[in-house]
Amino acid sequence: MTVLGTASPARNLVCRACGATYPLAAQHACFECFGPLEVAYDIEALKQVTREQIEAGPNNIWRYAGLLPAGQDEAARVTLNPGLTPLVRADLLAAELGITGGLWIKDDSANPTHSFKDRVVSVALSAAKALGFQRYACASTGNLANSVAAHAARAGVPSVVFVPHDLEPGKIVTTAVYGGDLVAIEGSYDDVNRLCSELVETDEFEDTAFVNVNVRPFYAEGSKTLGYEVAEQLGWRIPAQVVIPMASGELLTKIDKAFEELVEIGLVEAPAEGWTVFGAQSAGCNPIALALHNDTDEIQPQKPTGIAKSLNIGDPAAGPYALESVRRTGGWMEYADDEEIRAGIQLLARTTGVFAETAGGVTTACLVKLVKTGRLDPAKETVVFNTGEGLKTIDAVAEQVGPTYRVKPSLKAAKEAGLL
Amino acid sequence: MTVLGTASPARNLVCRACGATYPLAAQHACFECFGPLEVAYDIEALKQVTREQIEAGPNNIWRYAGLLPAGQDEAARVTLNPGLTPLVRADLLAAELGITGGLWIKDDSANPTHSFKDRVVSVALSAAKALGFQRYACASTGNLANSVAAHAARAGVPSVVFVPHDLEPGKIVTTAVYGGDLVAIEGSYDDVNRLCSELVETDEFEDTAFVNVNVRPFYAEGSKTLGYEVAEQLGWRIPAQVVIPMASGELLTKIDKAFEELVEIGLVEAPAEGWTVFGAQSAGCNPIALALHNDTDEIQPQKPTGIAKSLNIGDPAAGPYALESVRRTGGWMEYADDEEIRAGIQLLARTTGVFAETAGGVTTACLVKLVKTGRLDPAKETVVFNTGEGLKTIDAVAEQVGPTYRVKPSLKAAKEAGLL
Ligand SMILES: Cc1ncc(COP(=O)(O)O)c(C=O)c1O
Ligand SMILES: Cc1ncc(COP(=O)(O)O)c(C=O)c1O
Ligand SMILES: [Zn+2]
Ligand SMILES: [Zn+2]
Repeated sequence: MTVLGTASPARNLVCRACGATYPLAAQHACFECFGPLEVAYDIEALKQVTREQIEAGPNNIWRYAGLLPAGQDEAARVTLNPGLTPLVRADLLAAELGITGGLWIKDDSANPTHSFKDRVVSVALSAAKALGFQRYACASTGNLANSVAAHAARAGVPSVVFVPHDLEPGKIVTTAVYGGDLVAIEGSYDDVNRLCSELVETDEFEDTAFVNVNVRPFYAEGSKTLGYEVAEQLGWRIPAQVVIPMASGELLTKIDKAFEELVEIGLVEAPAEGWTVFGAQSAGCNPIALALHNDTDEIQPQKPTGIAKSLNIGDPAAGPYALESVRRTGGWMEYADDEEIRAGIQLLARTTGVFAETAGGVTTACLVKLVKTGRLDPAKETVVFNTGEGLKTIDAVAEQVGPTYRVKPSLKAAKEAGLL
Repeated sequence: MTVLGTASPARNLVCRACGATYPLAAQHACFECFGPLEVAYDIEALKQVTREQIEAGPNNIWRYAGLLPAGQDEAARVTLNPGLTPLVRADLLAAELGITGGLWIKDDSANPTHSFKDRVVSVALSAAKALGFQRYACASTGNLANSVAAHAARAGVPSVVFVPHDLEPGKIVTTAVYGGDLVAIEGSYDDVNRLCSELVETDEFEDTAFVNVNVRPFYAEGSKTLGYEVAEQLGWRIPAQVVIPMASGELLTKIDKAFEELVEIGLVEAPAEGWTVFGAQSAGCNPIALALHNDTDEIQPQKPTGIAKSLNIGDPAAGPYALESVRRTGGWMEYADDEEIRAGIQLLARTTGVFAETAGGVTTACLVKLVKTGRLDPAKETVVFNTGEGLKTIDAVAEQVGPTYRVKPSLKAAKEAGLL
């Protein structure tokens, strides 16, 4: 496959494990050591980017095009223009939890298909188009499927997305409605992922970009924009603490990487005390958190269970790097069970007006635990990432919440019900 | 109740029927003739507002604060900061329909609670707060309930919202999750509305702002921002044709009013051929469209049926004004049955990547009809308003769409299924 164009500040792919370098093509694993590949940049090119340029850019992730591997040419993008989602001040939630240093929700449910996945898909597919791919695909726990199918529909390109058969109706319908192919796999996400890794090697899929398989290095970079935005929205400042949900662990490592880059290229001053990264998983799928709690580098694959289906990756590809981020920055990881997740969704909604999917319930519930156990410093500024939309997983709370009154349409009935 | 502050360019309320004027207070009907009241502005104050001021403002409806009755003081707003939603170029849809003049979708599902109602609620509640109200309420077909409950949660103010008992689960859960009171009324929206008109007169509700009853004049102004945004996003230009869904008819009249205002205050040049306004209803609730088709001013109230529940207002308060807008601009109205609505949702999703609720299916289906019947000129630029989110009404298409393949996680199974 062709190599990416030269307008991009990206220079090559580099192995996260052994440091071997490769051209900017559709490759995701190191030929030497099978380690995962990552995009490496011309640091001098990145240093050319100024705050003023960014602020004058569009109100979406492409304001950071100068820091991304693809999408420099607006006309050549494959995108729903996600990003610049609200950073919501959460004073009522902070008060309930005793957080005094300032609390914010980065609400990525505001993206076009209502999860942070629109960011990674826009970058991955813009790279895929530049690399000449003719069909778009993914292995997904739900949100990625929604986003790939919608991006493909707008671009008028065929798509084929692979999901576990037992996803929430909200995620199935929101993929199928765009009219591409949707393949329900009788197995877990990890089975889906394994199958896609095999399919991508076949002749029939030679023209197909799997956003999180063969073009994964580009995909992963999209998550950096969440870190860039938080810093910009805080007035070009990195918050002291961030709480981030984990499935593969990729998102967490890329927010951390975004902060590092901003400092390195001089867009943000290095905070005197650095920043601290916290990770959130569900009790039904906690391989990364468990490795941290057990003080080991070995991440034991799991068979995921529980309602936080979008986070149900039992064999997390970026797990080791997420562990590294959290350990290096002095953070911690927590996990929440289904009851805590439901309570987390309701707590966040009631205090901020943000209705999150189960993943956001996980993150909120873990925030609560991190405060209770003293791992998170309530006196420091904290940003919590809500990465998905409550409407996609309404069954999670449908039995918990409902009408508080049911009455006939008359003043008399309203009085009898106690409304007056 | 107190009168609104002086930072607002609004000067008084004026009767849409007889022209009687009233102070800027919580009043919605004329004491003289019972006609609906509307906000009137100090036109000289509006003329002070410049494009540059607006463009330098926040990326939400408050960039137009100088043209709104409330919310001038940022700290005093009650808002989720909706607005500046995407104007999506819909070339694939245009090609399928034979529209050559340019087609755009104004996608208001991107708002915080995923409908255009966040706009009207933000303006209504910012006025309500200034007027001293202590509790927020509404009569709703669903979306308004979602938005009022979420706004109240973020503001930390009690809320009580009234809805027909048979709404979609997506709309019930997305209201109840915010923790306010939710009253399910055993009746239609028109019953709900009637009850709220009675409740608002009681002592127990004296401190309660019903966004679409006692503070309705402020509420209605919020819809103008949809018109402002479209003009700004087109480069300060009014499109030749707009297609707008109707329930009460208020939204349609306010988009038309927004265009008129922009011309009157000099922010936009008057288009040589003016603009043409088209209205969309469902076949199950088409009182306004039927009056137009029957060439009468008499709008016959209906008992609504059909899947487009958010548009199911059988006795539409602003119906006469919607008729006036459409007639004056040389437009037309259409209505679509449930099958056409489902097809409309799928057509829009497949060609634009925008997943709309039933109301958006209505609007898309009516667009198709307007082109087919020649009422809408395919050679002229057209903007279609999608005002709601597909995830809130997934049952509408859940039986139409689904996985195209179901396979075991092996290459062999994928081959047998025809994927290779
Ligand atoms: C809503 C949501 N949040 C967070 C994640 C975690 O992403 P990652 O796999 O990068 O850790 C996912 C992954 O699917 C997700 O859907
Ligand atoms: C999604 C949606 N679109 C359009 C409308 C129509 O609004 P109006 O009552 O102003 O005509 C509504 C009203 O509830 C709605 O929910
Ligand atoms: Zn290597
Ligand atoms: Zn009057």
